[in-house]
Amino acid sequence: MARWEPGARERLVVAAVDLFTEQGYDDTTVAEIAARAGVTRSTFFRHFTDKREVLVAGQETLSRLLAEGIAQAPEGVGPLDAVAAGLARAADEMGPLNRELGPRLKAAVAASSELQERDALKSVGLAAAMRTALIERGIEDPSAHLAAEIGLLAFKRGYAAWCGQDRRDDDGLAPHMLAALDELRTAATLLR
Amino acid sequence: MARWEPGARERLVVAAVDLFTEQGYDDTTVAEIAARAGVTRSTFFRHFTDKREVLVAGQETLSRLLAEGIAQAPEGVGPLDAVAAGLARAADEMGPLNRELGPRLKAAVAASSELQERDALKSVGLAAAMRTALIERGIEDPSAHLAAEIGLLAFKRGYAAWCGQDRRDDDGLAPHMLAALDELRTAATLLR
Repeated sequence: MARWEPGARERLVVAAVDLFTEQGYDDTTVAEIAARAGVTRSTFFRHFTDKREVLVAGQETLSRLLAEGIAQAPEGVGPLDAVAAGLARAADEMGPLNRELGPRLKAAVAASSELQERDALKSVGLAAAMRTALIERGIEDPSAHLAAEIGLLAFKRGYAAWCGQDRRDDDGLAPHMLAALDELRTAATLLR
Repeated sequence: MARWEPGARERLVVAAVDLFTEQGYDDTTVAEIAARAGVTRSTFFRHFTDKREVLVAGQETLSRLLAEGIAQAPEGVGPLDAVAAGLARAADEMGPLNRELGPRLKAAVAASSELQERDALKSVGLAAAMRTALIERGIEDPSAHLAAEIGLLAFKRGYAAWCGQDRRDDDGLAPHMLAALDELRTAATLLR
């Protein structure tokens, strides 16, 4: 998604989430999404292969940011500190619109098994990107595998907290993700 | 799947995996699967809603077994010991046919994005079943969430090892899953 700009792609995402929420995913067509966003069908198809892909917009960018952050973490830090750098890098690119869309997107996913499947595969992709980046730092499996899954959990829990009820206007996503990661780090050491 | 019996359901799974491997998922029809299994199309639809569901046959049974094992673990044991009980319970129900189908099923999933999505959602379902069972034991999030994800990793890694190259005819799945869990448990305490 890069920086969130009010371009056609972003308008299409907002229009799609609105329509999925209003009338359901199954009953929404690409033509309706394009019309609501004020663009043509062919503009839609320049950005997305189908209506389902709208909801995972940004997966590739997110994967790249997570991997970049992990790659650029200081040498010698442990896997979870590298993951923290990845989460911070990704979080810094997500702004108010992401926060506003989060709960509506979640509702649309919850109401459609097709979207749940696509959403699950998105999670698999994000974890895989982190795992690969960790392995490239010389961290071996199963530590890399485990740290990537903990990173994914921190991503989800931090994002949910950011989008949740206690939101203040001025707080960014990164502190929520890093707090979630710290909580999981503590939990990991206490597991028996 | 309950105990693996040579009934229509099992024949349909074998036929589907064979056909997906031979000619690809997209090019395989329900009619072909039914014919290969020696049953009618209506028998197919008594067991599965569509061809995709064949590949996640047993998800509900697996979820139930994992949850039962966790619920029946001795009182007072930690979350990962409860998860170990769940894995052992599920593994005990998986036999030679599961082991033989594993690699072919994996190849079929790898070749189809549609199957990857469904497979990813299956994983989400298994982890959710473990997390719920842990919460019912009084274990709170994020420990329950984390232990369930570690359990899912152990399930996948143990299953892959069992289906892998070093297989001996006489070893069961449970030791592989429990070894994978122990490895992850050690990795979790060493993460920084």
